[in-house]
Amino acid sequence: MRVALISIGDEVLIGQVVNRNAAWLAEELTLIGCSVAEHVTISDTAEQLTSTIDRVRTSCSVIIMTGGLGPTHDDITKDVLTSYTSDRLVMSEQWLAHLHDWMRERGREVTERNAAQALVPSRATILPNPIGTAPGLAIDHAGCLLVALPGVPTEMQHIMLDHVVPMLGDRLRESAGARAQYMTLLTAGVAESTLADMLGDPSDFLGNATLAFLPSYHGVRLRIGMRHADEAVRLQELWRVRDHILQKAGKYVYGSDKQTLAEVIGTRLRERGETLAIAESCTSGMLGARLTDVVGSSAWFLGGVMCYSNESKVRDLSVREATLAAQGAVSVEVAKELAEGVRTRFASTYGIGITGVAGPGGGSVEKPVGTVCIAVAVSGHCVSTRFQFGNDRYVNRERSVGAAMAMLWRLLK
Amino acid sequence: MRVALISIGDEVLIGQVVNRNAAWLAEELTLIGCSVAEHVTISDTAEQLTSTIDRVRTSCSVIIMTGGLGPTHDDITKDVLTSYTSDRLVMSEQWLAHLHDWMRERGREVTERNAAQALVPSRATILPNPIGTAPGLAIDHAGCLLVALPGVPTEMQHIMLDHVVPMLGDRLRESAGARAQYMTLLTAGVAESTLADMLGDPSDFLGNATLAFLPSYHGVRLRIGMRHADEAVRLQELWRVRDHILQKAGKYVYGSDKQTLAEVIGTRLRERGETLAIAESCTSGMLGARLTDVVGSSAWFLGGVMCYSNESKVRDLSVREATLAAQGAVSVEVAKELAEGVRTRFASTYGIGITGVAGPGGGSVEKPVGTVCIAVAVSGHCVSTRFQFGNDRYVNRERSVGAAMAMLWRLLK
Repeated sequence: MRVALISIGDEVLIGQVVNRNAAWLAEELTLIGCSVAEHVTISDTAEQLTSTIDRVRTSCSVIIMTGGLGPTHDDITKDVLTSYTSDRLVMSEQWLAHLHDWMRERGREVTERNAAQALVPSRATILPNPIGTAPGLAIDHAGCLLVALPGVPTEMQHIMLDHVVPMLGDRLRESAGARAQYMTLLTAGVAESTLADMLGDPSDFLGNATLAFLPSYHGVRLRIGMRHADEAVRLQELWRVRDHILQKAGKYVYGSDKQTLAEVIGTRLRERGETLAIAESCTSGMLGARLTDVVGSSAWFLGGVMCYSNESKVRDLSVREATLAAQGAVSVEVAKELAEGVRTRFASTYGIGITGVAGPGGGSVEKPVGTVCIAVAVSGHCVSTRFQFGNDRYVNRERSVGAAMAMLWRLLK
Repeated sequence: MRVALISIGDEVLIGQVVNRNAAWLAEELTLIGCSVAEHVTISDTAEQLTSTIDRVRTSCSVIIMTGGLGPTHDDITKDVLTSYTSDRLVMSEQWLAHLHDWMRERGREVTERNAAQALVPSRATILPNPIGTAPGLAIDHAGCLLVALPGVPTEMQHIMLDHVVPMLGDRLRESAGARAQYMTLLTAGVAESTLADMLGDPSDFLGNATLAFLPSYHGVRLRIGMRHADEAVRLQELWRVRDHILQKAGKYVYGSDKQTLAEVIGTRLRERGETLAIAESCTSGMLGARLTDVVGSSAWFLGGVMCYSNESKVRDLSVREATLAAQGAVSVEVAKELAEGVRTRFASTYGIGITGVAGPGGGSVEKPVGTVCIAVAVSGHCVSTRFQFGNDRYVNRERSVGAAMAMLWRLLK
C-alpha cells in the first residue's frame, strides 16, 4: 500500500514552519506496514493541490493531506476535495451538534464562521477531532483513499491514531506482498562512533537486514529494518540483529521504539517506590518539563528549583557561599551541593543538580561555553561529571538534559 | 525565479529524520526573493529522482537537491545527474588535492572510497564544501539550474550561503519580474476566529496582498505577503495591511517576524530594570525553559520553583494549607498565592503562578482536565484567570505557558 503525504500551506513552503507532521505521519505509516512513496509540500492554492492529487494518485492508493482545514479564507482543502470528487458540501448535523457542545463547555457561542466547519462533502466520512473544531475527512474516490487532516500537530495525531490507522490496518490485512518492518533500540550515554566500533562490521552481522544510526542530543537510536513478505522471517531477522546489538552494547540500551528515557526512568522509580527532585541552573526547567511530559509523573517527581541566580542556589538549595567563591557556580562541587540540597529540601530519594555555561556569553578560558557539571545524589552517595559540550546554546541545554537523565538511569539499572 | 526543493533519502521519507533542511533552504530562498514552489521528499532510487527532476523542471528554473552525495552505495545523486544531463564523470584534480590536504590534516589517508568524491560531471561547477568531503555541484541544463548539496545540515548551509545564494542573487538581479515579500505580525491572547472577525472581510482590506493566519499554542501569527516587481510597491502594500491589522487588533500584537513572546517580555523587563520569578505546578519547568531560551535572560529571570506537589506549594511558596483545603490546589486563589509566594521568595518585581489539571487523570466535574489557573503578581496588584483548555496533556501544558506569557506581557505594555 503506497501512501503519498501532501502538506498544504505557505507557512511550510516558505520555511516558516518545520514540517514535523510529515515525519510523524511517515513514521506511523511505516510502523503499520505502509510504504511511504513521497512527501510533497505545496502552496495553499486550489490549482496546485488539484494537480498534485492528480499526479500522486497514479502511483499511490492512499493520499494523506494536512493543513487547510481551518475556518479562514486561506483554508482551501475542503473546497478542493469537494470539487475534485464532483461532490457538494452538506451540513453535518452531528458535527454541528458537537460544535455547540464544544463551545458551550468553553462558555462561547457557535459563530457563523465556526458553523462552517460542519459543512463537509456529502460522500466524506467524518473523522472526529477530539481536541479541535475541524474534523478530519476520508473520501474513497476512484480507487484512491483521500484523507484530509488538520495541520495542528496534536489534532492531526489524534485523528490519525484514532481513525486513520485502524482504517488503513483493515485495508492492509486484505492486501499481500513484501513489507518492511523496523525495530529501534534506544541508547544513552555513548557516542555514535564508539557504538559503531562496539558493534563491529555491519556486513558480519546484518545479513538481509539493514541498520541505521540515528544520533540525537539525547542519545543514538539504532534502527534495524527487514523487508520480506513473511512476518515470521522479518521478526526472526530483526531479533537476530537485536540480540547482536544487546550482546555488544546492551549496557547502553535503555529501551526500544517510541519509549523515552523519561518514561523508563519514571517506570523504574515508580516500581521501586522512589522519588526525584531536581535543581536546574543553566537548563532552568527543561529537565522538569521533560520528566513531567510523562503521564502520572506526580507519583515519583516531587518538583524542583530553577536556581538561575547564585542567590537562589544559596538560599533555596543550601549551596555554601564558600564553595561558590572557591570553585565558581559552574563546578562539580556546586553541582553536588545542588543535588544534595534539592534532595534534602524535597525529601526525595534522588536529587539532580545541573549547572553550566550554556552560552553564548559567560565563558572563560578555564570554563568555556559548553562546560556543564551534573551531579546525582542518593543517600550516602553522589555521582558527578563535568561535560564539555559545544558552543551552541540550544544544543548545550538539550545535551545537558540528556546527560542528566542518562546518569540517573545508570543508577537505577 | 521559481525554485523546487528535492530531499533525497529514505531516512527522511520514513520519518526517522525531520526535514529541517527544507525549511532552512526555503527561508533563505524566500529572503533573497526566490519563490519556493514545492518541496518533495523521495526515496534514494535513480528512477524516482529522474522522474521528479523531469516533472519539476517544467515549472521551476532552479532545482536544489539535498542528500545522496556521500561515499556509500545508496548515494545516487551524482550518477543520476550525470546520466540526466548526458554527461560523464571526470576526476577533479582540484578537489582531489583538497581531499588529500583534508585527510592529511586529520592524520588519515585518502582511500579509494574518498577519492571517488572528486569524480564530478564534466560540465558541473564544483561548490566547495569547507567542512566535509563531498562538494556541492551546480549544472546549467537546458534553461534549468540543477544544484546538488550534501544532506548534512551544516555542510549544506555553508555551501548554500557561500556559493548558491550569491549565484542566485546574480541571476535574480539580471531577471526582472515580480517577487514575493512577507511581513509577519505576532499576536497573543486572542483566538484565530475572533481575530478574523476583528479584521473583517479580507477582500475589503487586502488589495493585492495576501494574508495567512498561522495558529500555534502560543498565539496566532498573521503573515502578510505581497508580490510585485517594485520593492517600493511591495513595502507600501505590506505596511498598508499592517496598519489595518494594528488599527483593528493592535492590542494583541506583541511583535513581528522572528521575535518570540519570551524575547519581547525579556526586552521590556530589561529596559525597565525589572525582574521575574515563577512558580510552576502543572507546567513544571516549561515556562522557565522557554524564558531561558532567550540569550541574556539572567539579567531579568531570577528563577523559580517547580511545585509539583502540595508539600512544595506550602513549604517553598507559602501557600496556606487553609487555601488548599478550601479551594483545592487548582484554583485561582492558589495561583495567586503561588505568584505572591514566588515573588516574595525571589524578591522579584513580578511573580507568576500556574496550577492546573493537565490530564489525562486528575479531573473532576468541577475541575475537568484542562482547567488551568494562572496569576501574575506585582507590588500591590495581582491579576488572575481560570482557563478551560482541552483534554490533551501536551496541548494544555503548552497553552498554559502561552497564556501565562500573554498575561505578563499585557501588564508590561
